[in-house]
Amino acid sequence: KKQYRIAVIPGDGIGKEVMPEGLRVLEAAAKKHGVSVHFDHFDFSSWDYYEKHGQMMPDDWKEKIGKHDAIYFGAVGWPAKIPDHVSLWGSLIKFRREFDQYVNLRPVRLMPGVPSPLAGRKPGDIDFWVVRENTEGEYSSVGGRMFPDTDREFVTQQTVMTRTGVDRILKFAFELAQSRPKKHLTSATKSNGISITMPYWDERVEAMAKKFPGVKWDKYHIDILTANFVLHPDWFDVVVGSNLFGDILSDLGPACTGTIGIAPSGNINPDGDFPSVFEPVHGSAPDIAGQGIANPIGMIWSGAMMFEHLGEKEAGRSIVDAIERTLAERTLRTKDLGGNADTTACGKAVAEMV
Amino acid sequence: KKQYRIAVIPGDGIGKEVMPEGLRVLEAAAKKHGVSVHFDHFDFSSWDYYEKHGQMMPDDWKEKIGKHDAIYFGAVGWPAKIPDHVSLWGSLIKFRREFDQYVNLRPVRLMPGVPSPLAGRKPGDIDFWVVRENTEGEYSSVGGRMFPDTDREFVTQQTVMTRTGVDRILKFAFELAQSRPKKHLTSATKSNGISITMPYWDERVEAMAKKFPGVKWDKYHIDILTANFVLHPDWFDVVVGSNLFGDILSDLGPACTGTIGIAPSGNINPDGDFPSVFEPVHGSAPDIAGQGIANPIGMIWSGAMMFEHLGEKEAGRSIVDAIERTLAERTLRTKDLGGNADTTACGKAVAEMV
Ligand SMILES: CC(C)[C@H](C(=O)O)[C@@H](O)C(=O)O
Ligand SMILES: CC(C)[C@H](C(=O)O)[C@@H](O)C(=O)O
Repeated sequence: KKQYRIAVIPGDGIGKEVMPEGLRVLEAAAKKHGVSVHFDHFDFSSWDYYEKHGQMMPDDWKEKIGKHDAIYFGAVGWPAKIPDHVSLWGSLIKFRREFDQYVNLRPVRLMPGVPSPLAGRKPGDIDFWVVRENTEGEYSSVGGRMFPDTDREFVTQQTVMTRTGVDRILKFAFELAQSRPKKHLTSATKSNGISITMPYWDERVEAMAKKFPGVKWDKYHIDILTANFVLHPDWFDVVVGSNLFGDILSDLGPACTGTIGIAPSGNINPDGDFPSVFEPVHGSAPDIAGQGIANPIGMIWSGAMMFEHLGEKEAGRSIVDAIERTLAERTLRTKDLGGNADTTACGKAVAEMV
Repeated sequence: KKQYRIAVIPGDGIGKEVMPEGLRVLEAAAKKHGVSVHFDHFDFSSWDYYEKHGQMMPDDWKEKIGKHDAIYFGAVGWPAKIPDHVSLWGSLIKFRREFDQYVNLRPVRLMPGVPSPLAGRKPGDIDFWVVRENTEGEYSSVGGRMFPDTDREFVTQQTVMTRTGVDRILKFAFELAQSRPKKHLTSATKSNGISITMPYWDERVEAMAKKFPGVKWDKYHIDILTANFVLHPDWFDVVVGSNLFGDILSDLGPACTGTIGIAPSGNINPDGDFPSVFEPVHGSAPDIAGQGIANPIGMIWSGAMMFEHLGEKEAGRSIVDAIERTLAERTLRTKDLGGNADTTACGKAVAEMV
């Protein structure tokens, strides 16, 4: 029986506080469902490490974590001490690119105990996935500046879409849609305004759709799509977008379900050539770090996604169920959700219900 | 006393039905406030015109409407008959570019009688402006495709930001913020992901802010900014963004206030070299066209913005007041807002209250 090897990277701030709860729940679920898992802990990808070593990660970071079955990641960044582009591009974005994690996957699901900012929406009403292209598109790094410091100054940056890059994310999204009861895919576009790359995206969606005749699909321009997230969140099942559009929709979606504080995410290499990273959507939250009050649900839910990704569907699902039952009890929720549990109490509650 | 000359272009579909109501209200307000205004009607920028002439506008469209004080525009487009890129890029986008309408301005305001999809929000809670750069940025048309129809195929499109283009939109936004009681400006960015153009945008915001010491300003990445539109719409006063970000925010904002069906917009050339275009945010709505049930409020409100732009503040404000009083009465609202008035009855009601 296979033993999974997981690289554990708590990172900064509340990442270090929610990680133990994530591990607690994973261990409980593993025990219950007979999953064998081994955790290796790493201190890099953090401000502490940077302070000592002058870089975010050791030179041999790829050897250290590149052979693990998955990476379980807390949060990185501490803007007052280190600029985001150093901390994020020196770790998270590096993982995405060098481990070819071309899928960014996030659930948008209204949970019990978490009031939606949308009037009249109840758990069950909102339940879909955002699938984001995670390696190219608008985040290209190609471009530059001309005539600096004059009135003629201008900057350009390219959006780059490759056939490989677009087709593989669309394939993943259509497959996900096909596996779900509603079998409905929505593509985010803006081909009426962004006149070269976005029509190409549309073209590839149409081509891919032919291979999935069982999937109903539609497309919306990103402007009206964000409006529809607010007005009709029940319309969606699987929503696929470019790097930028997916980024926007996967913050807006969780906001519509009450808070980005509990949202999980996977940065996935579906081909299995490299490990995938599972991390909560929230950051290191310097403002509340060190107080033991951080909400561990995003970390725990990311662990559930990791188990599902590894093929341990039952263990994963039992964690999501336990999260729902925990959130339903006011006393087990953390302060940000109107409860009075601290980080540990909330984590223990989920672990017991798993 | 100056007589304003307005070019009137109803366009397609419900554009033709809401335009008479817009004119009715403008005439009533003009009479009441002693504004002298003359309307010239044009049939181009419509499917009808295209069918007859094979193009959206006559060759001399610039001579025909370029000397008017403003353009009052209904709606254009009829996707089943003519592709969007022909109808929109052949008229609306042409106006923006060739009349250098570098500001796209839209109010986000929760009105009486229009239920917000956001729980617990009441009129007065949401009241801000979105200022969108309207000529460059992500809508550049520069780019292309290589290795077509092979596995190596890729497309690129440049985002282009010029010092002139960025500085003038920021100046407009800071000036608007300075004129408002809260004096608060929010900049939409994504400099943590889009690493060349967006840091430039941030740099110019910082430089411009120095010239407006009385304005408090902040910035959010577009992903969390869309989330905050839903979670904290009361935080905002003036929000400024690039062509794409402004496009997204100016659909999402009106959605948060209940409907994009009543939202107005201005495509403005602040320097006065060319006429500005005022138009409702909604499109030509082929699905309800011809039934006399379209909501004329977006058209009427756009007229109010036009009067304010021309310097007729009182006349403009009296129209906005009349809209609020009309919307507050269920029987005066159109069907889409739960009322039973038709287009004309709603328009007449506003005209009477002006
Ligand atoms: C129709 C489209 C090209 C246009 C835009 O994106 O500018 C529209 O969404 C708008 O906001 O006026
Ligand atoms: C921090 C930032 C670069 C990142 C992104 O835009 O990809 C974040 O918003 C995310 O969604 O993981």
